[in-house]
Amino acid sequence: MFDGVALMPRIAFWYDFASTYSYLSAMRIETLAVDRGISVEWRPFLLGPIFKKQGWETSPFNLQRSKGNYMWRDMERQCSVLGLPLVRPNPFPQNSLLAARIAYCGRNEDWIGAFTRAVYHMEFALGEDISNPELLAALLVELGAPAKRVMNEIETAEVKIGLRAEVATAESLGIFGAPSFVTEHGELFWGNDRLDDALDAAFMRFG
Amino acid sequence: MFDGVALMPRIAFWYDFASTYSYLSAMRIETLAVDRGISVEWRPFLLGPIFKKQGWETSPFNLQRSKGNYMWRDMERQCSVLGLPLVRPNPFPQNSLLAARIAYCGRNEDWIGAFTRAVYHMEFALGEDISNPELLAALLVELGAPAKRVMNEIETAEVKIGLRAEVATAESLGIFGAPSFVTEHGELFWGNDRLDDALDAAFMRFG
Repeated sequence: MFDGVALMPRIAFWYDFASTYSYLSAMRIETLAVDRGISVEWRPFLLGPIFKKQGWETSPFNLQRSKGNYMWRDMERQCSVLGLPLVRPNPFPQNSLLAARIAYCGRNEDWIGAFTRAVYHMEFALGEDISNPELLAALLVELGAPAKRVMNEIETAEVKIGLRAEVATAESLGIFGAPSFVTEHGELFWGNDRLDDALDAAFMRFG
Repeated sequence: MFDGVALMPRIAFWYDFASTYSYLSAMRIETLAVDRGISVEWRPFLLGPIFKKQGWETSPFNLQRSKGNYMWRDMERQCSVLGLPLVRPNPFPQNSLLAARIAYCGRNEDWIGAFTRAVYHMEFALGEDISNPELLAALLVELGAPAKRVMNEIETAEVKIGLRAEVATAESLGIFGAPSFVTEHGELFWGNDRLDDALDAAFMRFG
Protein backbone atom coordinates (compact mmCIF):
# COMPACT_ATOMS: atom_id res chain seq x y z
CA MET A 1 0.00 0.00 0.00
CA PHE A 2 1.47 3.30 -1.10
CA ASP A 3 -0.74 6.20 -0.11
CA GLY A 4 1.63 9.12 -0.22
CA VAL A 5 4.95 10.49 -1.34
CA ALA A 6 6.53 9.36 1.91
CA LEU A 7 5.71 5.76 1.01
CA MET A 8 6.80 6.01 -2.61
CA PRO A 9 9.37 3.26 -3.14
CA ARG A 10 12.91 4.37 -3.88
CA ILE A 11 15.73 2.95 -5.90
CA ALA A 12 19.33 3.95 -5.30
CA PHE A 13 21.21 4.51 -8.56
CA TRP A 14 24.98 4.16 -8.11
CA TYR A 15 26.93 5.53 -11.04
CA ASP A 16 30.42 6.58 -12.09
CA PHE A 17 30.61 9.27 -14.75
CA ALA A 18 33.42 7.38 -16.51
CA SER A 19 31.30 4.23 -16.89
CA THR A 20 29.91 3.48 -20.34
CA TYR A 21 26.98 1.35 -19.23
CA SER A 22 26.09 3.90 -16.53
CA TYR A 23 25.43 6.31 -19.42
CA LEU A 24 22.71 3.99 -20.76
CA SER A 25 20.96 3.89 -17.40
CA ALA A 26 21.49 7.54 -16.47
CA MET A 27 19.74 8.80 -19.60
CA ARG A 28 16.64 6.69 -18.87
CA ILE A 29 16.24 5.98 -15.17
CA GLU A 30 14.34 9.09 -14.09
CA THR A 31 11.69 8.73 -16.83
CA LEU A 32 11.30 4.99 -16.23
CA ALA A 33 11.11 5.43 -12.46
CA VAL A 34 8.58 8.28 -12.59
CA ASP A 35 6.39 6.16 -14.90
CA ARG A 36 6.26 3.50 -12.20
CA GLY A 37 5.89 5.84 -9.23
CA ILE A 38 9.41 5.20 -7.95
CA SER A 39 11.78 7.91 -6.79
CA VAL A 40 15.45 7.86 -7.73
CA GLU A 41 18.16 8.30 -5.11
CA TRP A 42 21.19 9.60 -7.02
CA ARG A 43 24.41 8.08 -5.71
CA PRO A 44 27.40 9.29 -7.73
CA PHE A 45 30.58 7.48 -6.68
CA LEU A 46 34.01 6.44 -7.95
CA LEU A 47 34.93 3.00 -9.21
CA GLY A 48 38.64 3.82 -9.38
CA PRO A 49 39.39 3.16 -5.69
CA ILE A 50 37.45 -0.13 -5.86
CA PHE A 51 39.35 -1.21 -8.98
CA LYS A 52 42.65 -0.23 -7.35
CA LYS A 53 41.99 -2.69 -4.53
CA GLN A 54 41.84 -5.39 -7.24
CA GLY A 55 45.23 -4.20 -8.43
CA TRP A 56 43.72 -2.56 -11.51
CA GLU A 57 45.17 0.82 -12.47
CA THR A 58 42.61 1.44 -15.22
CA SER A 59 39.26 0.17 -16.50
CA PRO A 60 38.96 -3.62 -16.92
CA PHE A 61 37.89 -2.78 -20.48
CA ASN A 62 41.41 -1.47 -21.08
CA LEU A 63 43.13 -4.26 -19.14
CA GLN A 64 41.34 -6.94 -21.15
CA ARG A 65 41.53 -5.95 -24.80
CA SER A 66 38.97 -8.46 -26.12
CA LYS A 67 36.50 -7.48 -23.40
CA GLY A 68 37.05 -3.82 -24.25
CA ASN A 69 36.55 -4.38 -27.98
CA TYR A 70 33.37 -6.28 -27.22
CA MET A 71 32.09 -3.58 -24.87
CA TRP A 72 32.36 -0.88 -27.54
CA ARG A 73 30.53 -3.03 -30.10
CA ASP A 74 27.88 -3.89 -27.53
CA MET A 75 27.53 -0.20 -26.63
CA GLU A 76 27.01 0.62 -30.33
CA ARG A 77 24.24 -1.94 -30.53
CA GLN A 78 22.62 -0.89 -27.25
CA CYS A 79 22.78 2.82 -28.12
CA SER A 80 21.26 2.06 -31.50
CA VAL A 81 18.33 0.24 -29.86
CA LEU A 82 17.87 2.99 -27.24
CA GLY A 83 18.28 5.85 -29.72
CA LEU A 84 21.29 7.29 -27.90
CA PRO A 85 24.30 8.85 -29.62
CA LEU A 86 27.74 7.37 -28.91
CA VAL A 87 31.29 8.61 -29.34
CA ARG A 88 34.32 7.07 -27.68
CA PRO A 89 35.77 9.48 -25.13
CA ASN A 90 39.47 10.11 -25.56
CA PRO A 91 41.10 9.25 -23.26
CA PHE A 92 38.98 6.41 -21.95
CA PRO A 93 38.12 6.24 -19.16
CA GLN A 94 37.63 9.93 -18.50
CA ASN A 95 38.67 11.37 -15.14
CA SER A 96 35.31 11.55 -13.37
CA LEU A 97 36.45 12.95 -10.02
CA LEU A 98 35.35 16.56 -10.49
CA ALA A 99 31.98 15.67 -11.99
CA ALA A 100 31.41 13.18 -9.16
CA ARG A 101 32.17 15.83 -6.53
CA ILE A 102 29.70 18.23 -8.13
CA ALA A 103 27.04 15.52 -8.33
CA TYR A 104 27.74 14.59 -4.71
CA CYS A 105 27.12 18.23 -3.73
CA GLY A 106 23.88 18.26 -5.67
CA ARG A 107 22.69 14.72 -4.96
CA ASN A 108 19.57 15.95 -3.16
CA GLU A 109 18.97 19.03 -5.32
CA ASP A 110 16.35 19.26 -8.02
CA TRP A 111 19.05 19.73 -10.69
CA ILE A 112 20.85 16.43 -10.02
CA GLY A 113 19.05 14.39 -12.71
CA ALA A 114 19.54 17.04 -15.39
CA PHE A 115 23.16 17.59 -14.38
CA THR A 116 23.90 13.87 -14.47
CA ARG A 117 22.42 13.50 -17.94
CA ALA A 118 24.21 16.63 -19.16
CA VAL A 119 27.61 15.29 -18.09
CA TYR A 120 27.02 11.92 -19.76
CA HIS A 121 25.80 13.67 -22.90
CA MET A 122 28.89 15.87 -22.93
CA GLU A 123 31.07 12.79 -22.58
CA PHE A 124 29.44 10.12 -24.75
CA ALA A 125 27.51 12.21 -27.30
CA LEU A 126 29.85 15.18 -27.75
CA GLY A 127 33.17 13.60 -26.79
CA GLU A 128 34.11 16.47 -24.50
CA ASP A 129 36.45 16.35 -21.52
CA ILE A 130 34.37 15.92 -18.37
CA SER A 131 37.31 16.79 -16.12
CA ASN A 132 37.27 20.37 -17.42
CA PRO A 133 36.02 22.62 -14.57
CA GLU A 134 34.93 25.42 -16.93
CA LEU A 135 32.70 23.08 -18.92
CA LEU A 136 31.19 21.66 -15.72
CA ALA A 137 30.58 25.13 -14.28
CA ALA A 138 28.95 26.18 -17.55
CA LEU A 139 26.62 23.17 -17.33
CA LEU A 140 25.56 24.21 -13.83
CA VAL A 141 24.83 27.75 -15.01
CA GLU A 142 22.80 26.39 -17.92
CA LEU A 143 20.73 24.29 -15.51
CA GLY A 144 20.08 27.25 -13.21
CA ALA A 145 22.13 25.66 -10.41
CA PRO A 146 24.21 27.86 -8.05
CA ALA A 147 27.39 27.27 -10.05
CA LYS A 148 29.71 29.52 -8.07
CA ARG A 149 28.69 28.11 -4.69
CA VAL A 150 28.94 24.52 -5.93
CA MET A 151 32.37 25.03 -7.56
CA ASN A 152 33.61 26.41 -4.23
CA GLU A 153 32.01 23.61 -2.21
CA ILE A 154 33.71 20.85 -4.18
CA GLU A 155 37.06 22.11 -2.90
CA THR A 156 36.06 21.62 0.74
CA ALA A 157 37.23 18.70 2.85
CA GLU A 158 33.61 17.94 3.63
CA VAL A 159 32.83 17.15 0.00
CA LYS A 160 36.11 15.35 -0.67
CA ILE A 161 35.72 13.16 2.40
CA GLY A 162 32.01 12.77 1.81
CA LEU A 163 32.55 11.35 -1.67
CA ARG A 164 35.24 8.97 -0.38
CA ALA A 165 32.74 7.78 2.23
CA GLU A 166 30.27 7.06 -0.56
CA VAL A 167 32.82 4.70 -2.10
CA ALA A 168 33.09 2.88 1.24
CA THR A 169 29.30 2.70 1.47
CA ALA A 170 29.14 1.28 -2.05
CA GLU A 171 31.61 -1.43 -1.07
CA SER A 172 29.65 -2.23 2.08
CA LEU A 173 26.56 -2.74 -0.11
CA GLY A 174 28.49 -5.27 -2.22
CA ILE A 175 28.94 -2.93 -5.19
CA PHE A 176 31.86 -3.75 -7.51
CA GLY A 177 30.80 -2.08 -10.77
CA ALA A 178 28.50 0.50 -12.29
CA PRO A 179 25.73 1.10 -12.87
CA SER A 180 24.39 -0.59 -9.75
CA PHE A 181 20.90 -0.34 -8.31
CA VAL A 182 19.95 -1.03 -4.70
CA THR A 183 16.39 -1.37 -3.43
CA GLU A 184 15.28 -0.17 -0.01
CA HIS A 185 15.53 -3.79 1.12
CA GLY A 186 19.16 -4.00 0.10
CA GLU A 187 18.66 -6.04 -3.07
CA LEU A 188 21.54 -5.30 -5.44
CA PHE A 189 21.37 -5.27 -9.24
CA TRP A 190 24.40 -4.69 -11.44
CA GLY A 191 24.44 -3.40 -14.99
CA ASN A 192 22.19 -1.52 -17.34
CA ASP A 193 20.69 -4.88 -18.32
CA ARG A 194 19.17 -5.12 -14.83
CA LEU A 195 17.56 -1.66 -14.70
CA ASP A 196 14.05 -2.98 -15.37
CA ASP A 197 14.46 -5.82 -12.88
CA ALA A 198 15.67 -3.35 -10.27
CA LEU A 199 12.65 -1.10 -10.78
CA ASP A 200 10.36 -4.13 -10.50
CA ALA A 201 12.14 -5.12 -7.31
CA ALA A 202 11.69 -1.65 -5.81
CA PHE A 203 8.09 -2.72 -5.14
CA MET A 204 8.77 -6.07 -3.55
CA ARG A 205 10.78 -7.93 -0.98
CA PHE A 206 12.98 -10.72 -2.24
CA GLY A 207 13.03 -13.94 -0.21
CA MET B 1 15.33 -15.89 -48.32
CA PHE B 2 15.65 -19.23 -46.62
CA ASP B 3 14.25 -22.01 -48.75
CA GLY B 4 15.89 -25.06 -47.30
CA VAL B 5 17.84 -26.59 -44.47
CA ALA B 6 21.09 -25.61 -46.15
CA LEU B 7 20.12 -21.96 -45.82
CA MET B 8 18.86 -22.22 -42.26
CA PRO B 9 20.77 -19.60 -40.25
CA ARG B 10 23.12 -20.89 -37.60
CA ILE B 11 24.28 -19.57 -34.27
CA ALA B 12 27.49 -20.79 -32.67
CA PHE B 13 27.07 -21.38 -28.94
CA TRP B 14 30.40 -21.24 -27.08
CA TYR B 15 30.18 -22.65 -23.59
CA ASP B 16 32.32 -23.87 -20.71
CA PHE B 17 30.77 -26.51 -18.48
CA ALA B 18 32.11 -24.75 -15.39
CA SER B 19 30.34 -21.49 -16.27
CA THR B 20 27.23 -20.60 -14.29
CA TYR B 21 25.63 -18.33 -16.86
CA SER B 22 26.35 -20.89 -19.62
CA TYR B 23 23.99 -23.21 -17.71
CA LEU B 24 21.13 -20.72 -18.17
CA SER B 25 21.70 -20.60 -21.93
CA ALA B 26 22.47 -24.28 -22.43
CA MET B 27 19.15 -25.38 -20.95
CA ARG B 28 17.20 -23.13 -23.32
CA ILE B 29 19.08 -22.46 -26.53
CA GLU B 30 18.02 -25.48 -28.58
CA THR B 31 14.30 -24.93 -27.92
CA LEU B 32 14.53 -21.20 -28.57
CA ALA B 33 16.57 -21.68 -31.74
CA VAL B 34 14.29 -24.39 -33.16
CA ASP B 35 11.27 -22.13 -32.54
CA ARG B 36 12.90 -19.52 -34.76
CA GLY B 37 14.23 -21.89 -37.42
CA ILE B 38 17.85 -21.46 -36.38
CA SER B 39 20.31 -24.31 -35.98
CA VAL B 40 22.72 -24.44 -33.06
CA GLU B 41 26.42 -25.04 -33.59
CA TRP B 42 27.67 -26.48 -30.28
CA ARG B 43 31.14 -25.16 -29.43
CA PRO B 44 32.29 -26.47 -26.04
CA PHE B 45 35.57 -24.86 -25.00
CA LEU B 46 37.65 -23.99 -21.94
CA LEU B 47 37.84 -20.57 -20.33
CA GLY B 48 40.70 -21.60 -18.04
CA PRO B 49 43.51 -21.03 -20.58
CA ILE B 50 42.01 -17.64 -21.53
CA PHE B 51 41.77 -16.61 -17.86
CA LYS B 52 45.34 -17.78 -17.25
CA LYS B 53 46.60 -15.34 -19.89
CA GLN B 54 45.04 -12.59 -17.75
CA GLY B 55 47.01 -13.92 -14.81
CA TRP B 56 43.89 -15.44 -13.23
CA GLU B 57 44.33 -18.87 -11.66
CA THR B 58 40.62 -19.33 -10.93
CA SER B 59 37.22 -17.86 -11.84
CA PRO B 60 36.94 -14.06 -11.62
CA PHE B 61 33.94 -14.78 -9.37
CA ASN B 62 36.36 -16.24 -6.85
CA LEU B 63 39.04 -13.59 -7.37
CA GLN B 64 36.55 -10.78 -6.73
CA ARG B 65 34.52 -11.72 -3.69
CA SER B 66 31.82 -9.05 -4.09
CA LYS B 67 31.35 -9.97 -7.75
CA GLY B 68 31.10 -13.63 -6.81
CA ASN B 69 28.54 -12.97 -4.07
CA TYR B 70 26.52 -10.93 -6.53
CA MET B 71 26.72 -13.60 -9.22
CA TRP B 72 25.23 -16.25 -6.95
CA ARG B 73 22.36 -13.97 -5.91
CA ASP B 74 21.77 -13.01 -9.53
CA MET B 75 21.82 -16.69 -10.54
CA GLU B 76 19.18 -17.42 -7.85
CA ARG B 77 16.96 -14.71 -9.27
CA GLN B 78 17.51 -15.73 -12.89
CA CYS B 79 16.94 -19.42 -12.17
CA SER B 80 13.78 -18.53 -10.31
CA VAL B 81 12.46 -16.59 -13.32
CA LEU B 82 13.47 -19.36 -15.76
CA GLY B 83 12.19 -22.19 -13.57
CA LEU B 84 15.62 -23.81 -13.29
CA PRO B 85 16.96 -25.48 -10.14
CA LEU B 86 20.22 -24.20 -8.68
CA VAL B 87 22.77 -25.61 -6.27
CA ARG B 88 26.29 -24.28 -5.82
CA PRO B 89 28.84 -26.80 -7.06
CA ASN B 90 31.54 -27.61 -4.55
CA PRO B 91 34.24 -26.88 -5.45
CA PHE B 92 33.46 -23.97 -7.69
CA PRO B 93 34.40 -23.81 -10.45
CA GLN B 94 34.21 -27.47 -11.34
CA ASN B 95 36.93 -29.03 -13.47
CA SER B 96 35.25 -29.06 -16.88
CA LEU B 97 38.06 -30.57 -18.95
CA LEU B 98 36.71 -34.11 -19.27
CA ALA B 99 33.15 -33.01 -20.01
CA ALA B 100 34.49 -30.56 -22.60
CA ARG B 101 36.51 -33.29 -24.32
CA ILE B 102 33.44 -35.52 -24.53
CA ALA B 103 31.32 -32.67 -25.88
CA TYR B 104 34.06 -31.85 -28.37
CA CYS B 105 33.93 -35.48 -29.60
CA GLY B 106 30.17 -35.28 -29.93
CA ARG B 107 29.84 -31.72 -31.15
CA ASN B 108 28.29 -32.79 -34.46
CA GLU B 109 26.37 -35.80 -33.11
CA ASP B 110 22.68 -35.84 -32.45
CA TRP B 111 23.25 -36.41 -28.73
CA ILE B 112 25.27 -33.22 -28.17
CA GLY B 113 22.34 -31.05 -27.00
CA ALA B 114 21.02 -33.67 -24.60
CA PHE B 115 24.52 -34.43 -23.30
CA THR B 116 25.27 -30.75 -22.73
CA ARG B 117 22.04 -30.25 -20.80
CA ALA B 118 22.61 -33.44 -18.81
CA VAL B 119 26.05 -32.29 -17.64
CA TYR B 120 24.78 -28.87 -16.58
CA HIS B 121 21.86 -30.50 -14.78
CA MET B 122 24.22 -32.87 -12.99
CA GLU B 123 26.36 -29.91 -11.94
CA PHE B 124 23.91 -27.12 -11.09
CA ALA B 125 20.75 -29.04 -10.20
CA LEU B 126 22.21 -32.13 -8.51
CA GLY B 127 25.54 -30.74 -7.30
CA GLU B 128 27.48 -33.70 -8.65
CA ASP B 129 31.13 -33.75 -9.68
CA ILE B 130 31.33 -33.27 -13.45
CA SER B 131 34.97 -34.34 -13.56
CA ASN B 132 33.98 -37.89 -12.61
CA PRO B 133 34.52 -40.12 -15.68
CA GLU B 134 32.11 -42.81 -14.45
CA LEU B 135 29.26 -40.32 -14.10
CA LEU B 136 30.00 -38.89 -17.55
CA ALA B 137 30.17 -42.33 -19.15
CA ALA B 138 26.86 -43.24 -17.47
CA LEU B 139 25.28 -40.12 -18.96
CA LEU B 140 26.42 -41.18 -22.43
CA VAL B 141 24.95 -44.63 -21.97
CA GLU B 142 21.67 -43.13 -20.80
CA LEU B 143 21.53 -40.96 -23.92
CA GLY B 144 22.20 -43.91 -26.22
CA ALA B 145 25.58 -42.50 -27.25
CA PRO B 146 28.53 -44.84 -27.97
CA ALA B 147 29.96 -44.39 -24.48
CA LYS B 148 32.86 -46.78 -24.76
CA ARG B 149 34.10 -45.38 -28.06
CA VAL B 150 33.78 -41.80 -26.85
CA MET B 151 35.55 -42.46 -23.54
CA ASN B 152 38.43 -43.95 -25.53
CA GLU B 153 38.48 -41.12 -28.04
CA ILE B 154 38.85 -38.42 -25.41
CA GLU B 155 42.24 -39.87 -24.50
CA THR B 156 43.59 -39.39 -28.03
CA ALA B 157 45.93 -36.58 -29.00
CA GLU B 158 43.51 -35.65 -31.74
CA VAL B 159 40.79 -34.75 -29.24
CA LYS B 160 43.14 -33.12 -26.74
CA ILE B 161 44.76 -30.96 -29.42
CA GLY B 162 41.42 -30.36 -31.12
CA LEU B 163 39.89 -28.92 -27.96
CA ARG B 164 42.94 -26.71 -27.40
CA ALA B 165 42.53 -25.44 -30.96
CA GLU B 166 38.93 -24.54 -30.13
CA VAL B 167 40.22 -22.29 -27.35
CA ALA B 168 42.50 -20.55 -29.87
CA THR B 169 39.58 -20.19 -32.28
CA ALA B 170 37.46 -18.69 -29.50
CA GLU B 171 40.17 -16.13 -28.81
CA SER B 172 40.46 -15.28 -32.49
CA LEU B 173 36.72 -14.56 -32.52
CA GLY B 174 37.19 -12.11 -29.64
CA ILE B 175 35.67 -14.41 -27.02
CA PHE B 176 36.71 -13.71 -23.41
CA GLY B 177 33.86 -15.26 -21.42
CA ALA B 178 30.96 -17.68 -21.56
CA PRO B 179 28.37 -18.14 -22.76
CA SER B 180 29.19 -16.44 -26.04
CA PHE B 181 27.22 -16.52 -29.25
CA VAL B 182 28.60 -15.84 -32.71
CA THR B 183 26.50 -15.34 -35.83
CA GLU B 184 27.55 -16.53 -39.27
CA HIS B 185 28.61 -12.96 -39.98
CA GLY B 186 30.95 -12.93 -37.00
CA GLU B 187 28.79 -10.79 -34.72
CA LEU B 188 29.68 -11.65 -31.10
CA PHE B 189 27.31 -11.60 -28.13
CA TRP B 190 28.43 -12.31 -24.58
CA GLY B 191 26.33 -13.53 -21.71
CA ASN B 192 23.02 -15.26 -21.17
CA ASP B 193 21.39 -11.81 -21.19
CA ARG B 194 22.23 -11.54 -24.90
CA LEU B 195 20.82 -14.92 -26.01
CA ASP B 196 17.67 -13.41 -27.52
CA ASP B 197 19.63 -10.63 -29.24
CA ALA B 198 22.01 -13.21 -30.68
CA LEU B 199 19.15 -15.28 -32.07
CA ASP B 200 17.61 -12.15 -33.60
CA ALA B 201 20.99 -11.31 -35.13
CA ALA B 202 21.33 -14.78 -36.66
CA PHE B 203 18.88 -13.53 -39.30
CA MET B 204 20.56 -10.26 -40.15
CA ARG B 205 23.79 -8.55 -41.01
CA PHE B 206 24.96 -5.86 -38.65
CA GLY B 207 26.37 -2.66 -40.19
